[in-house]
Amino acid sequence: MSEQVEELTLTELTDLVGGESIGRSTIGFTGIADITDAKDTEIGVLIDPAYLSKTKTSKAGALLVSQDLSAKLSSEVCQIVSENPRKAVALLLDHFYSLQKTPIGVHSTAIVHENAQIGNDFYAGPYVVVEDCVNIGDGVKIHSHSVIQRGVEIGNEVVIHSHVVICPSVRIGSRVTMQAGSRIGTEGFGYFNSGEKSVRIPHVGGCILGDDTEIGANTCIDRGSLGDTVIENGVKIDNLVHVAHNVVIGANTLLSAQVGIAGSTKIGIGTKWGGQSGVAGHIEIGDYTEISAKAGVIEDSAPHSRLAGFPAKDLKEFLRGQAHIGRIEGLRKQIRELREIIKGHFTDDSHSEKS
Amino acid sequence: MSEQVEELTLTELTDLVGGESIGRSTIGFTGIADITDAKDTEIGVLIDPAYLSKTKTSKAGALLVSQDLSAKLSSEVCQIVSENPRKAVALLLDHFYSLQKTPIGVHSTAIVHENAQIGNDFYAGPYVVVEDCVNIGDGVKIHSHSVIQRGVEIGNEVVIHSHVVICPSVRIGSRVTMQAGSRIGTEGFGYFNSGEKSVRIPHVGGCILGDDTEIGANTCIDRGSLGDTVIENGVKIDNLVHVAHNVVIGANTLLSAQVGIAGSTKIGIGTKWGGQSGVAGHIEIGDYTEISAKAGVIEDSAPHSRLAGFPAKDLKEFLRGQAHIGRIEGLRKQIRELREIIKGHFTDDSHSEKS
Amino acid sequence: MSEQVEELTLTELTDLVGGESIGRSTIGFTGIADITDAKDTEIGVLIDPAYLSKTKTSKAGALLVSQDLSAKLSSEVCQIVSENPRKAVALLLDHFYSLQKTPIGVHSTAIVHENAQIGNDFYAGPYVVVEDCVNIGDGVKIHSHSVIQRGVEIGNEVVIHSHVVICPSVRIGSRVTMQAGSRIGTEGFGYFNSGEKSVRIPHVGGCILGDDTEIGANTCIDRGSLGDTVIENGVKIDNLVHVAHNVVIGANTLLSAQVGIAGSTKIGIGTKWGGQSGVAGHIEIGDYTEISAKAGVIEDSAPHSRLAGFPAKDLKEFLRGQAHIGRIEGLRKQIRELREIIKGHFTDDSHSEKS
Repeated sequence: MSEQVEELTLTELTDLVGGESIGRSTIGFTGIADITDAKDTEIGVLIDPAYLSKTKTSKAGALLVSQDLSAKLSSEVCQIVSENPRKAVALLLDHFYSLQKTPIGVHSTAIVHENAQIGNDFYAGPYVVVEDCVNIGDGVKIHSHSVIQRGVEIGNEVVIHSHVVICPSVRIGSRVTMQAGSRIGTEGFGYFNSGEKSVRIPHVGGCILGDDTEIGANTCIDRGSLGDTVIENGVKIDNLVHVAHNVVIGANTLLSAQVGIAGSTKIGIGTKWGGQSGVAGHIEIGDYTEISAKAGVIEDSAPHSRLAGFPAKDLKEFLRGQAHIGRIEGLRKQIRELREIIKGHFTDDSHSEKS
Repeated sequence: MSEQVEELTLTELTDLVGGESIGRSTIGFTGIADITDAKDTEIGVLIDPAYLSKTKTSKAGALLVSQDLSAKLSSEVCQIVSENPRKAVALLLDHFYSLQKTPIGVHSTAIVHENAQIGNDFYAGPYVVVEDCVNIGDGVKIHSHSVIQRGVEIGNEVVIHSHVVICPSVRIGSRVTMQAGSRIGTEGFGYFNSGEKSVRIPHVGGCILGDDTEIGANTCIDRGSLGDTVIENGVKIDNLVHVAHNVVIGANTLLSAQVGIAGSTKIGIGTKWGGQSGVAGHIEIGDYTEISAKAGVIEDSAPHSRLAGFPAKDLKEFLRGQAHIGRIEGLRKQIRELREIIKGHFTDDSHSEKS
Repeated sequence: MSEQVEELTLTELTDLVGGESIGRSTIGFTGIADITDAKDTEIGVLIDPAYLSKTKTSKAGALLVSQDLSAKLSSEVCQIVSENPRKAVALLLDHFYSLQKTPIGVHSTAIVHENAQIGNDFYAGPYVVVEDCVNIGDGVKIHSHSVIQRGVEIGNEVVIHSHVVICPSVRIGSRVTMQAGSRIGTEGFGYFNSGEKSVRIPHVGGCILGDDTEIGANTCIDRGSLGDTVIENGVKIDNLVHVAHNVVIGANTLLSAQVGIAGSTKIGIGTKWGGQSGVAGHIEIGDYTEISAKAGVIEDSAPHSRLAGFPAKDLKEFLRGQAHIGRIEGLRKQIRELREIIKGHFTDDSHSEKS
């Protein structure tokens, strides 16, 4: 992933990302890397204090650091000192790597239906399939083997990595990214009972992904049964996540890997979900709720709640409870002691110990 | 997903789904939708009492309701009143949407081996691969990019969505559906130790999916190592589920999303598994057992058990235990109080408090 | 999966796998199967004592058994008695099934870039894509629809099953297997906050899979953001596992199905992870740590730890705690009894009961 371009000096890079530069350096930098990997023409990144000791052995031509960490470095070390070093990393990555040629054109093996409407700067890789009545905006890149089924609408500047399936009539906003193997608009798990058997309820609702949403590798988002599944603007979803039919996920929510959201649950804006957490169906999760890793939520939550455990409860209460479990054994012992004391003083000993 | 067909009146639709019609309506209905989305030529669905208040603003030409909810509506609201409104929804969806053209034919880019036996009304989409010695019944639809490997047998009326892989010699019954990205008959996680290393035991057993089974998106079902992995008739499996080698899943079982079943476990008929639950290997789960979301079962279960937690125990016991955790702090306090009382009366104070 | 070859006698098979043969048998054996499935020309496998009773009804021509189980069988039953019957199974499977023709050649629909370097005995199935600057060793088999992106390096004797995606510049060792649908080197879940929004940090690091690693179906391994994600030699990963960016997994580790490893965590060698377990980001897990199924680790662990629960703690402590939860109710009752006794003897009754 190389093909870098314009080499900038320390001062020029500092102008690019904001902040202050320290030390004398006139070389043109060629890239950015971990402090341990960076070469003498690269910026080394030092964000984690645990890596401070690596400064001595680093070959980096200069370091990108926070103000805190800069204070612990010799002023002889060339530095870009940034208030928001993570943002600076992203800007530097963008500078060094974004000018990689993004492909344009339709590969000879891609099948794009004659009724599909396609915008400018379109790319379709080998074995891509775009079915009829699809409507695609400008700057959309569809990588090898991905399938865009009948009637799908896609906005501008969308990147669809390899082996993605987008099912009929799904609507995708602009600046959306889907990692390899994601499934959007599949038919969900909805049945009615007929004696011991389960009979499928056809799922004919829609599935809508807002602007600036991102979907992780092998993540599955089901379409609605009736009505729509909705992923609002700015939602980021990690790998192997399950979003069931008719779920609504509020804007800017973050779902970590392997989260599961059951059917018809409505999630507020700005919520954060730890890895492997989940929520039952037909629940409402308040805005800005934070769900701990592995939690299982089975009740509505108020805005700004912090939840953990199963059934999920307030995080602090959960952690206190977990700590208390280790004390039960001690309590048993104390009760036994009290009983002994009392027994020694009273004749009344009819109460047998049970545990 | 449009292309509706025959418009029926309220009376005709009621005849179709059973139940009773209320109100005067002579229009021809064109579809079915959520009560909040339905247009004036559509049936609005009102099953959840929480949506009763939406009746006033709904534009639906008529409502499909249960007898309970009908009793709360004005008799001026046009209604189909059903004993089983979920079943009625399925029947109406089938009426309005099932006549979508189901494709027939083999796409010019599909590779179907000359030795494959193929039934009538076959569809193979773009880039489908059907290898040699495959045997496929009537009415089977295989969507784009799916791969049916050597020696697979498939019954009638099976729908294989895009990007499915069916590994060699897997046997699939009739009326089976596989959602996008499911993997059937992959080689599982079986090794023997050789010092610190793990050496693969080849997995050469079979994998059998019974009639009326359904497999969710990106779900993985491993073949047996020796012997078979068996999914019995009527089993429904949601997205991102893991079924390991040599598992047997009893008829009509329901596995929710992200469930994991470890190797050689045998599950009875009619069991229900909540999302993200799991079971250890070499376990027997009794018929009609219900496993709570997130539970982890590590012992055999009796029929009709209801289990929760990890290690899983009886559901009621689990919930009681969870409630009790919050009381430990109070118990500590009470013990301290009792100790104080006793201390105030006895000189014997040699027992120190520990917690 | 048939096409067996050389039929060996009981004595010859025993020579092949080591151990001792019991009983008179001169037939040529044609295969190996479960004790319940084996035909009269096959070796039946009896490793699990629970299947001892199946000996009477088995049609197997001979049994493969451990020394323990052999002692419980009549000496009239033909047997191969092995110190390590699992290893013997693998050797017998190898004998009976490994000579299946492994395909060679590039399918006419496979697209292999002219700049790709390809070793001997290469196989690329239908619709495989190998992009430019890819470097592939000897004996590599790539099955239908898999995509090997730009700059990937692959060692010798690697098997890539159908529908795998390997992203740009990933480096794969020798004797590696990837099951269907695995995603290697995808871009992970890394953002910086910009007000309420999350803005992607480009992930331009590498992803390295060591020799003898195996990756399960639909498992996802993200590339590094800066620096590399590293899966060391001999690591085996089951289905639907998530490995985030910049994770390092020590040699010979075993990750069961649906495990999740969050970003930048460093795992020691020889660790074992139960199904659906997980670990937070930026953690160090000591060598030979064993993580119970469903555990969630949020702190560094010492070598040889055994952990369970969430937040994960020592396994024994966890199990003791779980057992104690069931005793809380009894403790409440005992405290109430003690209070009654004391109350009956003292006038001081000012302490109210709370729970």
